[in-house]
Amino acid sequence: MAADGAQAQGLMALGAVALRDRLASGALDAVTLVEACIARIEAREAEVGAWAFFDAGFARHQAKAMDEMRRAGRPIGPLHGLPVGLKDVIDTARMPTENGCALDAGRVPMKDAAIVEKLKSAGAILMGKTVSTELAFMHPGRTRNPHNLARTPGGSSSGSAAAVADGMVPLAVGTQTAGSVIRPASFCGVTGFKPSFGTISRRGVLRQSQTLDTLGVFAIDPAGAALLAEVLFGHDPADSATRPAPFPALARSAASEPPLPPVFAVVRPPGWDGAHDDLKDAFLALEEELGEQAFAVTLPALFEEAAAQRRRINFAEMSRNYYRYERDGADRLGAPTLEAIREGATTPARDYLAALDWPGLLNAALEEILSRCDAILCPAAPGPAPEGLDSTGDAIFNGLWTLCGTPAITLPLLTASNGLPMGVQLVAARGDDARLMRTARWLYDRMTA
Amino acid sequence: MAADGAQAQGLMALGAVALRDRLASGALDAVTLVEACIARIEAREAEVGAWAFFDAGFARHQAKAMDEMRRAGRPIGPLHGLPVGLKDVIDTARMPTENGCALDAGRVPMKDAAIVEKLKSAGAILMGKTVSTELAFMHPGRTRNPHNLARTPGGSSSGSAAAVADGMVPLAVGTQTAGSVIRPASFCGVTGFKPSFGTISRRGVLRQSQTLDTLGVFAIDPAGAALLAEVLFGHDPADSATRPAPFPALARSAASEPPLPPVFAVVRPPGWDGAHDDLKDAFLALEEELGEQAFAVTLPALFEEAAAQRRRINFAEMSRNYYRYERDGADRLGAPTLEAIREGATTPARDYLAALDWPGLLNAALEEILSRCDAILCPAAPGPAPEGLDSTGDAIFNGLWTLCGTPAITLPLLTASNGLPMGVQLVAARGDDARLMRTARWLYDRMTA
Repeated sequence: MAADGAQAQGLMALGAVALRDRLASGALDAVTLVEACIARIEAREAEVGAWAFFDAGFARHQAKAMDEMRRAGRPIGPLHGLPVGLKDVIDTARMPTENGCALDAGRVPMKDAAIVEKLKSAGAILMGKTVSTELAFMHPGRTRNPHNLARTPGGSSSGSAAAVADGMVPLAVGTQTAGSVIRPASFCGVTGFKPSFGTISRRGVLRQSQTLDTLGVFAIDPAGAALLAEVLFGHDPADSATRPAPFPALARSAASEPPLPPVFAVVRPPGWDGAHDDLKDAFLALEEELGEQAFAVTLPALFEEAAAQRRRINFAEMSRNYYRYERDGADRLGAPTLEAIREGATTPARDYLAALDWPGLLNAALEEILSRCDAILCPAAPGPAPEGLDSTGDAIFNGLWTLCGTPAITLPLLTASNGLPMGVQLVAARGDDARLMRTARWLYDRMTA
Repeated sequence: MAADGAQAQGLMALGAVALRDRLASGALDAVTLVEACIARIEAREAEVGAWAFFDAGFARHQAKAMDEMRRAGRPIGPLHGLPVGLKDVIDTARMPTENGCALDAGRVPMKDAAIVEKLKSAGAILMGKTVSTELAFMHPGRTRNPHNLARTPGGSSSGSAAAVADGMVPLAVGTQTAGSVIRPASFCGVTGFKPSFGTISRRGVLRQSQTLDTLGVFAIDPAGAALLAEVLFGHDPADSATRPAPFPALARSAASEPPLPPVFAVVRPPGWDGAHDDLKDAFLALEEELGEQAFAVTLPALFEEAAAQRRRINFAEMSRNYYRYERDGADRLGAPTLEAIREGATTPARDYLAALDWPGLLNAALEEILSRCDAILCPAAPGPAPEGLDSTGDAIFNGLWTLCGTPAITLPLLTASNGLPMGVQLVAARGDDARLMRTARWLYDRMTA
């Protein structure tokens, strides 16, 4: 095995779906895959800093158990033997979950989050906990961008994005309240998928903003994201945002061909004018490449207000949910966290309640656009990962879709003049996750073939 | 027909279930029933003031149509030919709905509320709109207590309670955000039923407080309340508080015998000490009468906080929902309404959000009590209807259960020394509406036999 974990990079480049197939056919065993991941982590972790908790022995133990189970002919789950990284805001029983926060140092939950139960049932290997910014907000953790260690990986799901980008794991889970899945995926050059609000249970996940918090996934390609997300989808009475209803077959949809060539509504969202020239140029080139499959639309004026309304909801709910942190440990919180909590604490309930009307208004305004296309096409971030590690970058192109609760996926299809990756974001109507996944896979194949 | 509407009183005394049976058998036709109601209304309305909108011709027209439909053998709904009064905060297409508010004078909705659609489908006759306090809050309308015209009928569903109590209609619908069904029913000496939160759609009903607003019904006895409420129950995607799930067969349950003699947990809720001596004495006598079927319990200390938390939620949401009234017409609002809106406007979102945790906490604390009894037994109001028309009385024994979202029913089983009625309130676990109805009917029969 290559000491620098090069084997892992080779394996990861296959994508999670091919790895799953090799594991299923016996061409690859979980122990080999996990050893490759461990080697890669051990070679690179000191520089990348993707992991908040990592125990090679525990990973090996699970891999052996999965291989034995397979050899014994016992039931094989859809993720059987695939290592998954979990953002450190997701509770894992008897495994530390510190929420990226000094005030939660040493915290070990009693119970698994709902999605951890699902991952275990599906045969996934819990590779460890990935670095989150402080309380999944903006104060950065120690993760660096694998493409350039002097740059931010984005946040708040910094470790999950970096670990997948660096070939340490094929799959990882994160959360998004503003742009915490899509932005780091864009900066790190991987696929990030934030499904429709209400598709994945948040039981056992740090609550920042109940109206906005959404779980999401990272993979190198859309097919891998579909494989993982489908396992996580489902109703949970403990999360009232989820509903008892059929959930889409994402993996099958991602593998299927669109009945007609997909059509994209190209949107330049609020903040476009301030975006990086490289991003504008690359996005324009993509639009041209798509020719008649793309048409430009202008978002209704209403959307100019979305960022302020989203912020109001986020900070007000955060001031409630993080009350204990502020009351008992304000001096040990990062400045962005504390400022947001305090801003939220000044929000009148009346304004907060008025802001809650906005998702409905915005989705109604989107209906006309979404009825004419397979997906909205827009940038995932205003440019490549910015220099420095003090900020996780700007979520201006993400918060809008989090507020709407619409599914969004970013694909690593653009490159800046400095060689860094930039994401293309596709957005569909709330609940239309399966078609979005099919469209995204189509675009990914078309642009990477 | 007696000019004073005495015929209506006789008919109403039969109860809605017997009227339904007579209508079904042909022993009574809807025109006769409606004419009796009209005569009673015309004889008494000048004194009682129960109606915000009443059109005898429209009532007659519906009655004729219902009778013709029955004679033609066309489908008969469960309320076929039964007149129902609707609180004037419930939208009725092409019929005025003024929300008890001068600022809504002349307002005529385009669409029926969800429950009005249900009533029409069930064959009910819309008898008219009953007086609400201003915006279903505390500023009184012109309704008087039929038992004593110098006393309040209670509120906010003043007209609905008074119309049923006075024999003007067998059934009426109201709403409760604090105590607006149970309290007026208690003061007017009729049965009032506020079902579990999330059982009756609020689409098309004035929104005061989305966390608390609950539709409820009035009848002279529990069987009538069950008949009407069952028609109104059901899932509506437009009201996210309702769920796609089976709804209970209230009418059948009300008619059934308990498998064992019901057991009551007797509660003296916060506010008991300040209650009227007549109420305390009568309630104590009832408790003794029930003997071994009643046992006293003490509510957990948590419940002392419930009134303040309920008020916080109510006023904060009201300040948002009634914003337009305050902005454009503050000088034409009653003092209680304006004060509550303004108090709500000062509530920080953080405190509002913290208050939203209380229903869950309180219901968890109730579990142990509710697992040991068929229903909680407590007073419906602190005494008989107080003198004067400037206040609708005190909701202290009601707001608690509205906050919990538990079903509550009041039965006119007690009498004050001045001869005025007082209600006994039964409360069950959220969702246990059918058993509550069975228990209530049992107690009603036992005490009135």
